[in-house]
Amino acid sequence: MFKKVLVANRGEIAVQIIRALHDMGITAVAVYSSADKDSLFVHLADEAICIGGPQPSESYLNMAQIISAANLTGCEAIHPGYGFLSENAEFAELCETCHIKFVGPSHELISLMGDKSNAREAMEKAGVPVIPGSQGVVKTTSQAETVAEKVGFPVLLKSAAGGGGKGIREVDRPEDLHSAFEQTQQEARVSFNDDDIYVEKLIRNAKHVEMQVIADEFNHVVYLPERDCSLQRNHQKVIEESPCVQISPTERKKLGEIVANATLKLGYTNTGTYEFLMTEDHHFYFMEMNTRLQVEHTITEEVTGIELVKAQLKVADGQELPFTQADAAVKGHALECRLNAEDPSHNFAPRPGRINHLFFPAGSLGVRIDSGVAQGSFISPFYDSMIAKVIVHLNDRNTVIAKMNRILGELKINGVVTNQTFLKYLINTAEFNSGQYSTNFIENQVLTNKEGFHVAESV
Amino acid sequence: MFKKVLVANRGEIAVQIIRALHDMGITAVAVYSSADKDSLFVHLADEAICIGGPQPSESYLNMAQIISAANLTGCEAIHPGYGFLSENAEFAELCETCHIKFVGPSHELISLMGDKSNAREAMEKAGVPVIPGSQGVVKTTSQAETVAEKVGFPVLLKSAAGGGGKGIREVDRPEDLHSAFEQTQQEARVSFNDDDIYVEKLIRNAKHVEMQVIADEFNHVVYLPERDCSLQRNHQKVIEESPCVQISPTERKKLGEIVANATLKLGYTNTGTYEFLMTEDHHFYFMEMNTRLQVEHTITEEVTGIELVKAQLKVADGQELPFTQADAAVKGHALECRLNAEDPSHNFAPRPGRINHLFFPAGSLGVRIDSGVAQGSFISPFYDSMIAKVIVHLNDRNTVIAKMNRILGELKINGVVTNQTFLKYLINTAEFNSGQYSTNFIENQVLTNKEGFHVAESV
Repeated sequence: MFKKVLVANRGEIAVQIIRALHDMGITAVAVYSSADKDSLFVHLADEAICIGGPQPSESYLNMAQIISAANLTGCEAIHPGYGFLSENAEFAELCETCHIKFVGPSHELISLMGDKSNAREAMEKAGVPVIPGSQGVVKTTSQAETVAEKVGFPVLLKSAAGGGGKGIREVDRPEDLHSAFEQTQQEARVSFNDDDIYVEKLIRNAKHVEMQVIADEFNHVVYLPERDCSLQRNHQKVIEESPCVQISPTERKKLGEIVANATLKLGYTNTGTYEFLMTEDHHFYFMEMNTRLQVEHTITEEVTGIELVKAQLKVADGQELPFTQADAAVKGHALECRLNAEDPSHNFAPRPGRINHLFFPAGSLGVRIDSGVAQGSFISPFYDSMIAKVIVHLNDRNTVIAKMNRILGELKINGVVTNQTFLKYLINTAEFNSGQYSTNFIENQVLTNKEGFHVAESV
Repeated sequence: MFKKVLVANRGEIAVQIIRALHDMGITAVAVYSSADKDSLFVHLADEAICIGGPQPSESYLNMAQIISAANLTGCEAIHPGYGFLSENAEFAELCETCHIKFVGPSHELISLMGDKSNAREAMEKAGVPVIPGSQGVVKTTSQAETVAEKVGFPVLLKSAAGGGGKGIREVDRPEDLHSAFEQTQQEARVSFNDDDIYVEKLIRNAKHVEMQVIADEFNHVVYLPERDCSLQRNHQKVIEESPCVQISPTERKKLGEIVANATLKLGYTNTGTYEFLMTEDHHFYFMEMNTRLQVEHTITEEVTGIELVKAQLKVADGQELPFTQADAAVKGHALECRLNAEDPSHNFAPRPGRINHLFFPAGSLGVRIDSGVAQGSFISPFYDSMIAKVIVHLNDRNTVIAKMNRILGELKINGVVTNQTFLKYLINTAEFNSGQYSTNFIENQVLTNKEGFHVAESV
C-alpha cells in the first residue's frame, strides 16, 4: 500500500481524506494556501506545505507547485478531493508523467467526460439512455431547428464545454431559436473559448438522481444506491438523500446494472457518478458523469456502511475492490444538509467571517457532521462557503427527518450568517416530506411563493 | 404519547435523553444541582429546575424534590437514566403513587433484582444458569463451609445487599473461610446495614458478557446482541464491545432465548441487562441484572440501529415495541472507550477541573462521541469523572480498532488529566486485538506487568 499520500484540497474533504489515510496507517501530506495556514486540515496532516497565495490559481489550482510538493515530500499518490483539480485531465496526465498515482480515473476518461457532447455520445454507445437531442454538436441554427422539431420544444442549447450554469439556454418556441443560438454560441466563446453547441430536449419537473460507481483494475464494478439531489438552487445542491423515495428496488437494480456495464465498457476505474434526470414517469436520462468523489458521497457511505475514500485509495494502489455488489445494499435512509456561510435574505450571497462560537450537536445514533472548521475558524472569501455537511442516517426516513429537525435546531454558529433556518424550512415542507419534489422546487416554489420561505426570518 | 418528561439525571445521559425526547417532539424538563447550572444538558432542556446543592443527596438523589419538580412542570413521566435513582425501588414506587410514569420496570422487580441473593434464586427458577453456590443466604461459617466444599474452592463470599466492590471477599482455602466470613459479615453490616451473606464459586479468567433485553406490556421481548465488558478496572467498565468475538451466532441465539424467556416469566417490562460470567469453555453464569439503561447501551444502538432511549419511552407510554427480534440482528462491530478525567499514574484518581480546550474528532463514518461537556465545561468533583463515550462502529472489528486508534490520537483535551493514553494502550495490546481477554486483564496483566502500560507516559 502507499506509504505517503498528498491531499490536493482543503476544507472538510481534506480533513476526510487525511482521516482515511491515518485510519489506513498512511502518512498524509497537506498542501495549503496562505489563507488556510490555521485550518483544521493543516493541523491534522503529518506534513503540510504552503504552496501559494489565497487565490485558487496561486495554490490549489497550481499544478506545478502541487507536483513539486509531492516530489519534495516523497508522496506516491495525490488525492484531489472534489473541485479544484479533481476533474482536470491535464493534471491527471501530469501526475502520470511524474510517476505519481492520481487517485481517480485515467486522464483520457476525465477528458472524455469533461466534454459534455462527447460524454453524451460515449454513454449512448455504452448503453446509457441520454436525453433526446442532437448527435454531437450542431453548427448552425437550422441544424438546431431540425433537432428541436424532432425532439419537440422546449429544448436546451448547451455549450459542450459549459458548466456551472453558464453556456446554457432554454428555448420554448421555434421563433426564439435563432437569437438564442447566437447568444449561447457567443457566451460559450467568451466563457470557455469554445463555441460548440448541442441541443437537448428540456425535461421539466424532473428529479436529479445520480448513481455512483466504483471500479478496480480487475474488471470489478460495484454500483452504489442512488442519491436524490433534486433540492438545488442555482445548480448547487442544497440537500441530498439516499435512497430516492420514488425509486423501487427493481428500478435501482436496473439503473445500477446499466451504469455498471457502461463503466466496464468504458474501462473506467476508481469512482465516478452518473447524473440522471428522472422524469415523472420514471424515465432516466444521462446528464453528465462526475469523474471524482462528490460532496454527497457521505450519504452513500452511511446507507451502505462502505468507506469510499479508503476504497478509492485501495483501487488506486492497484488492489481489488474490498467489497462486492451484495455489500452495497441499501441499509436505512440517509439525509445530508449543506450548511453554508451565506445569507438567504441577500440572494444567498456568501458571508465570510470568523466563527466565534460553534456547537455541533453530534453524539446520537446516526448523526455525522463533517466539517473542516472548528470554533475560531475563519470562513475565507476565497473558497466555497460550506461550513459543514450535516448528515443523519437511521432506519427510516421519517425518523431521519425528525432527527435532522432537532439537529438543525440545536446547532449553533455565531459570527457568520448561515442558511441554517433555510435548511430547516426546506425539510419541513410538505413536498420534502412526501418526497415529491423536483429540481425546480426551491427556485420555482420555495423562493417565489409568498407562503414559502420568508427570507427575512432567516438571519 | 407523553407530552412532557422529566430527566432525573445529569451529564451525557441527560443529554442523550433530552435529545431523544426532542426527536420525538416531547418537551424535556431537566433538574440540576447548583454545581451543574452551566451544564450542556441544562441548556438543551426546554425547562430546567435547580433542585439543590452539589452533593447527590441534596439533588439527584433527592426524591421529594424531583417529584415536586415533575408535578410543578406537569411532567407525565420521569426518565432516571443510569446511576442515581435509576435502580431505586422506593423512587419507582413513589413515582407510581404520584401518578408519574417511571421509565423502567416495576418497583417490585427493581427490588427483587436489587437483592443479589433473591435475584439469583429468581433467575434459577426462570431458567437462567447461575453460578454454583448457596441456595439463598448462609447464616453460619459451617453452612458456608458445606457449600464451599460442594462447589469447590476458590469461592466468593458476597453480601446480598452489596455493590460497587464492597462486601465481597475471595476465599482460596478452607482454613481461611471462618475469618473471611466474619469480616465480610461485619463489612456488610457497616456498609449496607444488612449482614446477609451468600456463597458463590469463584470463576477465574472469565469474560463479563451481558445481554440487554427490552420488553413491552404485551408480552413482546427482544434480546439484543451481547456486549463484552471484560475490560474493567476496580469493577468499573473501561472499554466495551459488541458483539463478543468469542461468541458464535448459535450461542448468541441460545443465550438470547434464555434471557428473553426469563424476562417473560418475570413479567419484566422496559429495558434491563443480564450480566453473565462466561468461562473459558463458554459456560454462562448469571451474576446480576441491571434494571435500567446502561452506560454502554450505545454500542448496542450502533450494532442494531435501534434507538434504545426512544424504545424505552414508547414502552413506558404503553405502546408496543417498535421492532421485532429480526430487527435486532448484529450489523457490524462496535467499540466504546470511556474517556475519564482521571490520572492513571495516581491509581486513576479522579481529576476534576475545567476543560480549556476540547476537540472531538467526530465527522467520519461510524464515529460517535457522546458527551455532556463542551469546551469550557467544568468536570465536577461531585460526580463521576466521565468526559465522553468514544464509539466507533464499522463493518469489521479490525477496521473499528484502527479507527479508534486514530480517534484517540486526534482527540484533544486540555485542562484536565485523562485516561486517553491508557485507552490507546489497551486497544493496542495483543490480547485486545485477538479478543482473548478476561475481566482480570487490566489489573492482573496490564497494570502489574513491567512490559505493560507505563503510567508515567500517560499524562
